[in-house]
Amino acid sequence: MVRVGIIGGTGYAGAEVVRIIAGHPETEVSMLTSRKYAGTRFSDVFPSFSGVVDQACEKYDVDAVCECCDVVFLALPHKVSMEVVPEFFTRGKKVIDLSADFRFNTLSRYESHYQAHSAPELLDEAVYGLCETHLTSIQNAQLVGNPGCYPTSVLLPLLPLIKAGAVDPDTIIADAKSGVSGAGRALSLTTHFCEVTESFKAYKVGAHRHTPEMEEQLSLAAGHEVHITFTPHLIPASRGMLTTIYVDLSNNFSRQAIYDALADFYQGSYFVRLGGAQRLPDTRNVRGTNFCDIGFHLDERKGRLILISAIDNLVKGAAGQAVQNMNIMLGLEETAGLMQIPYPL
Amino acid sequence: MVRVGIIGGTGYAGAEVVRIIAGHPETEVSMLTSRKYAGTRFSDVFPSFSGVVDQACEKYDVDAVCECCDVVFLALPHKVSMEVVPEFFTRGKKVIDLSADFRFNTLSRYESHYQAHSAPELLDEAVYGLCETHLTSIQNAQLVGNPGCYPTSVLLPLLPLIKAGAVDPDTIIADAKSGVSGAGRALSLTTHFCEVTESFKAYKVGAHRHTPEMEEQLSLAAGHEVHITFTPHLIPASRGMLTTIYVDLSNNFSRQAIYDALADFYQGSYFVRLGGAQRLPDTRNVRGTNFCDIGFHLDERKGRLILISAIDNLVKGAAGQAVQNMNIMLGLEETAGLMQIPYPL
Amino acid sequence: MVRVGIIGGTGYAGAEVVRIIAGHPETEVSMLTSRKYAGTRFSDVFPSFSGVVDQACEKYDVDAVCECCDVVFLALPHKVSMEVVPEFFTRGKKVIDLSADFRFNTLSRYESHYQAHSAPELLDEAVYGLCETHLTSIQNAQLVGNPGCYPTSVLLPLLPLIKAGAVDPDTIIADAKSGVSGAGRALSLTTHFCEVTESFKAYKVGAHRHTPEMEEQLSLAAGHEVHITFTPHLIPASRGMLTTIYVDLSNNFSRQAIYDALADFYQGSYFVRLGGAQRLPDTRNVRGTNFCDIGFHLDERKGRLILISAIDNLVKGAAGQAVQNMNIMLGLEETAGLMQIPYPL
Amino acid sequence: MVRVGIIGGTGYAGAEVVRIIAGHPETEVSMLTSRKYAGTRFSDVFPSFSGVVDQACEKYDVDAVCECCDVVFLALPHKVSMEVVPEFFTRGKKVIDLSADFRFNTLSRYESHYQAHSAPELLDEAVYGLCETHLTSIQNAQLVGNPGCYPTSVLLPLLPLIKAGAVDPDTIIADAKSGVSGAGRALSLTTHFCEVTESFKAYKVGAHRHTPEMEEQLSLAAGHEVHITFTPHLIPASRGMLTTIYVDLSNNFSRQAIYDALADFYQGSYFVRLGGAQRLPDTRNVRGTNFCDIGFHLDERKGRLILISAIDNLVKGAAGQAVQNMNIMLGLEETAGLMQIPYPL
Repeated sequence: MVRVGIIGGTGYAGAEVVRIIAGHPETEVSMLTSRKYAGTRFSDVFPSFSGVVDQACEKYDVDAVCECCDVVFLALPHKVSMEVVPEFFTRGKKVIDLSADFRFNTLSRYESHYQAHSAPELLDEAVYGLCETHLTSIQNAQLVGNPGCYPTSVLLPLLPLIKAGAVDPDTIIADAKSGVSGAGRALSLTTHFCEVTESFKAYKVGAHRHTPEMEEQLSLAAGHEVHITFTPHLIPASRGMLTTIYVDLSNNFSRQAIYDALADFYQGSYFVRLGGAQRLPDTRNVRGTNFCDIGFHLDERKGRLILISAIDNLVKGAAGQAVQNMNIMLGLEETAGLMQIPYPL
Repeated sequence: MVRVGIIGGTGYAGAEVVRIIAGHPETEVSMLTSRKYAGTRFSDVFPSFSGVVDQACEKYDVDAVCECCDVVFLALPHKVSMEVVPEFFTRGKKVIDLSADFRFNTLSRYESHYQAHSAPELLDEAVYGLCETHLTSIQNAQLVGNPGCYPTSVLLPLLPLIKAGAVDPDTIIADAKSGVSGAGRALSLTTHFCEVTESFKAYKVGAHRHTPEMEEQLSLAAGHEVHITFTPHLIPASRGMLTTIYVDLSNNFSRQAIYDALADFYQGSYFVRLGGAQRLPDTRNVRGTNFCDIGFHLDERKGRLILISAIDNLVKGAAGQAVQNMNIMLGLEETAGLMQIPYPL
Repeated sequence: MVRVGIIGGTGYAGAEVVRIIAGHPETEVSMLTSRKYAGTRFSDVFPSFSGVVDQACEKYDVDAVCECCDVVFLALPHKVSMEVVPEFFTRGKKVIDLSADFRFNTLSRYESHYQAHSAPELLDEAVYGLCETHLTSIQNAQLVGNPGCYPTSVLLPLLPLIKAGAVDPDTIIADAKSGVSGAGRALSLTTHFCEVTESFKAYKVGAHRHTPEMEEQLSLAAGHEVHITFTPHLIPASRGMLTTIYVDLSNNFSRQAIYDALADFYQGSYFVRLGGAQRLPDTRNVRGTNFCDIGFHLDERKGRLILISAIDNLVKGAAGQAVQNMNIMLGLEETAGLMQIPYPL
Repeated sequence: MVRVGIIGGTGYAGAEVVRIIAGHPETEVSMLTSRKYAGTRFSDVFPSFSGVVDQACEKYDVDAVCECCDVVFLALPHKVSMEVVPEFFTRGKKVIDLSADFRFNTLSRYESHYQAHSAPELLDEAVYGLCETHLTSIQNAQLVGNPGCYPTSVLLPLLPLIKAGAVDPDTIIADAKSGVSGAGRALSLTTHFCEVTESFKAYKVGAHRHTPEMEEQLSLAAGHEVHITFTPHLIPASRGMLTTIYVDLSNNFSRQAIYDALADFYQGSYFVRLGGAQRLPDTRNVRGTNFCDIGFHLDERKGRLILISAIDNLVKGAAGQAVQNMNIMLGLEETAGLMQIPYPL
């Protein structure tokens, strides 16, 4: 069994990593740390795990983690993450970091939107963990920067079409909608039940830090610097992310050619499901799963493609993709631990 | 007291008309018809009205309605509406029709998206009831086609800016999100609680019949035929509509110039509230009210304006605007019956 | 116009008092204080009030309040409330206190469940503000202890039946369910959207501090000390309280006799609506209103009565009843400011 | 692999059986019938299953089912079920029936609450499938009547305490709350999103047909005919059932003795989790799982025990328990296919 350490296991993303690793046929949760809940049983923090994952959360100690773990997942706030990653890296551990700290190739881009980076030398080592599009580099990586939820939902539909020359990357508008769990378990008025239920709003318009992350990947695919318009919204639901993308068509691609470009690219990718024009994505259909559902509509009057993707922001948008990265890094079956049958409702 | 008839008073929009008319200081509900619930007390259909509106729903009878009513609201499905409107019109009643049947100036546009029109001679008489932008013509109208909810949410932010030459109408993309009550009270899997809660999806992409309605009004404002991209989505909430509009700037309008254009246009319009860039709209803030909140962000890198509007789809998007139209048609205070203090939550 | 001061106006109950007073035909909001938001416009705290109640929240200052107000509503935590009430009382202001501090006749009962009381001499002056059952004493009161939400929902159905000798008060079980807004606007994991949605649970079982409040009133009605079993639960909804009460019948009261006892008692009480056996209460029907809906079922096999009440916990369970108390204290129409037409949904 | 047929696989309970059987290590879905969706792929009815369970729903045909299945699950309405069960029984198939038709030992009890029974001779063959309490008889059964969701939630906490003599069965009051999925996928106003959200109500008070089912099992345990008071309520959530039970203590059982009686009884029962007094059940903690969480509080002033249970109404309350029954009937591991790790949220 692969021995797994989860650092920051009592936030929502961390707890999802615990869930998946605990049910994974080839891994075990060897260490689970939490600043806030050290000494408390995980199942007292999340009582759904009672009788299932009862081990105690521990105080973070790098030596203790390294001793008992082969792979380390970091579900920490950015900045905190980059302070602990180098130690694991140096000691040869495989590291999957769920923060933004190791998602960027370009130091300046990171630093202009986040803060000074304390381990810039690792940015070259780190691989961007969008599994379906960066498979080869992940296979050889020791350190993966696990993508943000919004970037995952935007890049999976777009990258194949940009590479195929089907769309003009300089015309991208992404209108994204996320469930509340994306804001984490920390307390704020924004996540107070009475402020969210029966509410719908945009937030951080033109200012969300996932924008530069998307732009870096889109620029790499396009071969030139790309800027996009990105607007995140909050859905009154706990899980789920649906992103509607508007982009101008290039080269007169037809509906069928769009479909083929996506289908060819994702052939063999179990977790990307194409509904085509007939069945559009719904967050319900991916709830609790690692699937990314993609559909599209071609607005022929305007020469514009409307792409729609749905993911569970905590699974394909965070913990599920993190485990998928681990599987790839270790040469395990890519879907191991992630094959749970979806719920009908 | 103005004597009001409400035809089709037991759907959601009709029941909202009943609510507002019953609380209006200068009107009374003189007749309330319902095909399905004729003979039943309104408060047995909607028990919240118990002790408040206990009168019986009646079978529709044009003579009976005309005898006891000065103003008639029609909250019927399209097609049904156009069959009864002519009789009220001929007998000199003021008519506010909440269906799509009298919203179009152009017969062919209506007929190509709906069906053959049985009263085309009334299209010239009918006035489009978007109160803030069509005030003068509504004052003189006998028949008003009350706007659809999506068109209201799209046109209120855009029309002043198109008229000011601030934006390029040929670049409009409207990404709209509506609460479930927009689908009405009829039964369908789409509105089954278990299929909606914790769900978010787009529907009728590129095919929603509110698109031609918007395009007609936008074309009139632009002075040439305008096509837009419109994508409606379903929010897991009962009321509320938030629309995010993307449009290219023209003539280098600045943030301040945009604000001024909107503020000038809506000066004196009680129901349009501008939050500017500081406070973006949220459906919660307009819940149960006739307000339309508008905010915006200028994406300077792309020369693109992001406009956001929030309305209650059943109030400013249907029944509230209908009553506002009645007030204007009758020369009453425009806000009469619509001044209810909003809820904090 | 009656000049009203609202102390603690930015919690949920306080903001509801603002809403009702702002729409009341005979009152005005003369002063609105908030520890947290002093200096901020009320409409910046609750943007739904934008253009409606834009006045600034002020720092609490007893002299300033007394100078501009005839009536003072206190929407403060208990303990804080009893420290400020005496000053208003001494200066002759009418006071409605929404905390628990002045709800008890018996000092020891209060002190054994809350804390030492700093103004015990006022307990005799204070009147329990359950409007329908304590009308006469409220008319003559200068200080009203506004009832808790749970006690309102339990006492309104029970008191008339206890007084009529229809039920045995020693057998009362109250199984109550409350919306999340009852927990207030303060932040806690308990009110985090993701922890509440799709959740249902009991809390503070056998330990809720509304129990002694109910027991005091039930004991007064019964003429002997009464103990009850009370279990509160949390509904995944923002507003609404439904309480199911089980109590043994006395004296072979029939279904009709039960109905008559309730109907006689509440004759002329606008805000209590009896649905009888045919229509059972639903929190939706009272949402945003000051109504208390009561229904019942007689389990003849067990000689047991099942009483069900529904209120909006923030209105009849807090702010609405507080204003109703003010109306009664000032000799205004009891329903003034509280006649808003309910919503159909 | 055990070959499984699911008759009526496109209702909510049936679809949950499909989900569990599809993920079960020792079974396969060999036949899936649906009156409404025959000829349609299961994943077109429930798109979450796309790429997971794509087989077509078939028209019901007893021969076809018998040919390819060893075990048959019936997720049909009562009455329909009893018409098809005898054929499967005669042909030697193992049958788990999720309707009420084979839950009763006493024909008259069934017939007085449902209708005339067309296969009364099978009532003696049928075993009541409450797994933890009827284990031995299920092991030898060919036909199991799978318990109702409410009975499961009421009986699991009570039966051990009745058998231990800890409580007086003649004093039971069960106040139950169920998610909307309990009403099934059929359309009705009761399940319309806008009628459910922000709503809470009781329904079928004193008249729910799960009452006689509970009373039969309670009577068997008590050794005499028992009547209870049962009140079901509707939670604005899709899944989850929480039941609060009030019952008088017998024989001065202490808190510890209560705990011990439950713990002894459920020793070795993986799916029953005792939280004791410290941690009370919450439907979130059992969502999507086969667990039944039980907690309790002893109201010493009244000599009354408050028992609280939480289940997922579609899993332990329907499909999960059905599969657990199959496991027991076939001598498989009782937990096989049901060990999915719970979600933290």
